[in-house]
Amino acid sequence: MGTDKKTLRIAVIPGDGIGKEVTPVAQAALDKATEGMVDLDYESFDLGAERYLRDGQILPDEDLERIKGKDAILLGAVGDPRIKAGILERGLLLKLRFALDQYVNLRPSKLYRGVTSPLSDPGDVDFVVVREGTEGLYCGAGGAIRRDTPAEVATEVSINTAYGVERVVRYAFQLAMRRRRHVTLVHKKNVLVNAGDMWQRIVDRVAKEFPEVDHDYLHIDAATIFLVSQPSRFDVILTDNLFGDILTDEAGAVVGGVGYSASGCINATNDYPSMFEPIHGSAPDIAGRGLANPTAAVLSAAMLLRHLGFDGPADAIDGAVEADIEESGSTSRSTDQVAADILARI
Amino acid sequence: MGTDKKTLRIAVIPGDGIGKEVTPVAQAALDKATEGMVDLDYESFDLGAERYLRDGQILPDEDLERIKGKDAILLGAVGDPRIKAGILERGLLLKLRFALDQYVNLRPSKLYRGVTSPLSDPGDVDFVVVREGTEGLYCGAGGAIRRDTPAEVATEVSINTAYGVERVVRYAFQLAMRRRRHVTLVHKKNVLVNAGDMWQRIVDRVAKEFPEVDHDYLHIDAATIFLVSQPSRFDVILTDNLFGDILTDEAGAVVGGVGYSASGCINATNDYPSMFEPIHGSAPDIAGRGLANPTAAVLSAAMLLRHLGFDGPADAIDGAVEADIEESGSTSRSTDQVAADILARI
Ligand SMILES: CC(C)[C@H](C(=O)O)[C@@H](O)C(=O)O
Ligand SMILES: CC(C)[C@H](C(=O)O)[C@@H](O)C(=O)O
Repeated sequence: MGTDKKTLRIAVIPGDGIGKEVTPVAQAALDKATEGMVDLDYESFDLGAERYLRDGQILPDEDLERIKGKDAILLGAVGDPRIKAGILERGLLLKLRFALDQYVNLRPSKLYRGVTSPLSDPGDVDFVVVREGTEGLYCGAGGAIRRDTPAEVATEVSINTAYGVERVVRYAFQLAMRRRRHVTLVHKKNVLVNAGDMWQRIVDRVAKEFPEVDHDYLHIDAATIFLVSQPSRFDVILTDNLFGDILTDEAGAVVGGVGYSASGCINATNDYPSMFEPIHGSAPDIAGRGLANPTAAVLSAAMLLRHLGFDGPADAIDGAVEADIEESGSTSRSTDQVAADILARI
Repeated sequence: MGTDKKTLRIAVIPGDGIGKEVTPVAQAALDKATEGMVDLDYESFDLGAERYLRDGQILPDEDLERIKGKDAILLGAVGDPRIKAGILERGLLLKLRFALDQYVNLRPSKLYRGVTSPLSDPGDVDFVVVREGTEGLYCGAGGAIRRDTPAEVATEVSINTAYGVERVVRYAFQLAMRRRRHVTLVHKKNVLVNAGDMWQRIVDRVAKEFPEVDHDYLHIDAATIFLVSQPSRFDVILTDNLFGDILTDEAGAVVGGVGYSASGCINATNDYPSMFEPIHGSAPDIAGRGLANPTAAVLSAAMLLRHLGFDGPADAIDGAVEADIEESGSTSRSTDQVAADILARI
């Protein structure tokens, strides 16, 4: 006994700022929730702003290859004001999402009891955004000519494929079957007529395979209104890479702050490891002072376990977080205190 | 006397649904506010869904030429569920914005006393979004190959020029000088590195001409958070066409509904007429029942007058609306009742 316990190999990328403070808490939650069930074999990767400033490396090929061999990735946060916008994002975070073909960016939004929403009457908010993760305006196509002259032209190209859209659409409908069976496609098909029309056609076609699932459509601008005026109407929101980025941050605000929002970058066919991270950033303004709330990182750990089929331990973490927030969500606590409180409940 | 009164030639496009109900109220407000000062010479254009369904025409060249000769355009709303998304938007609304080079899409957001925001503690919300109106993802570049096959690829291209960006940036800084002297650039420069970098460089350069104006930067995702968590922080928000579309609808929700939000599509060099419209749509669900709130249309009329240099009458309309909302904003009134109440105060 014990010797044939399964081992999970997990790449850990704490990253920058508060990423370094919240990731160890997520690991502690993983350890405690899986105790006796599975061995966790962590390998930590020194990637992020400090590494880049030290030796100019963002994501060495060798690291990427090692990461490809893992079962999952736990990521903290990446970003530092000393580094020009785009370098770490495109070179590390987006590079991982694209190289590992993490085509489903899964972002649950739930208003926990004990958390105060900025909305006076939010209702029962519990939805998931299924954001496409490997296409659209994030693919890095585009360029500039006559840079820094009055005649400069800069372009950004959104590339969308039936291949890429269909797989994430199908994922959203499958997820809806396990939830309240409602999918809302969000796009801007009255302006982005090429991509929007393709998304709508594919949704209509895939929907026929799921007769029990309702679906409707909202323009992105209307969706940002409903997130504020009636967030409880949503179950599964299905959208493209950029619209998903925007909606999930707004949703984070609606459920009381991105400090409670976890996310998974998922390769649903398991060709490569999936990656789990809080949606908050590295928060350099509060970093290093023990003030960061590790809740979203801990919730990411639960998503990681659920993705790998460990529903029991995932439920244990989710339950612990839920109970902790209900009891102490409105008190101001240090990182260590929140960590201790959650861990005690797992 | 009277004979040398100036005449303003105004194109009126009531459009569809509630557009037809609110536009006459805006005209009545224009008439009353300018009584004895100026002659208003309206020409109504039969454009929108009904015209399209009747004879297939969206914006005949002849109409566009006549409109070009006007001093301003008053628009209601365009859109009808019977027509495929994109046809009227691209063929009429966006065509006018582009053909008339309306490069500043100006959208004030103000939380009026008497209006209940969905936020429990919104603070003092009073900002203006300066949205670029003739470039970006709205230019209609893009296409699709292998349509309706598993190998389909659909693209959307965002085209951004230094020419187009600089003029709207300068407008935003000039506007900030007449307000609280703070400009927030919103973009996604960590992902859209070509366009984002150009916007940021142009803002930094133009800002040097306005040493009294502060400026900062937010990613679009962060901006959607702050609109919910701290909307009072904004004075002038400067952004591109698509991000402006998204932010202004979210802002409309934050100030109690798009029913209070007016907008101007402005050609600031006055080569062509500017266009004023409520930001709400044609609302087919409530159309024809006398339920539409004409407030945003009336506020658009005030923007029209201010644009043409009639600050006094514009102030009179704004003041009447403000007083009306403060007294009766929370009661449920018919279109006619709101119209009568506002007109009585002008
Ligand atoms: C950091 C940035 C590239 C990233 C994104 O835009 O996807 C972030 O905002 C997120 O949502 O994970
Ligand atoms: C109808 C649509 C094309 C338009 C836009 O996206 O600009 C509308 O949403 C607006 O904001 O005026």
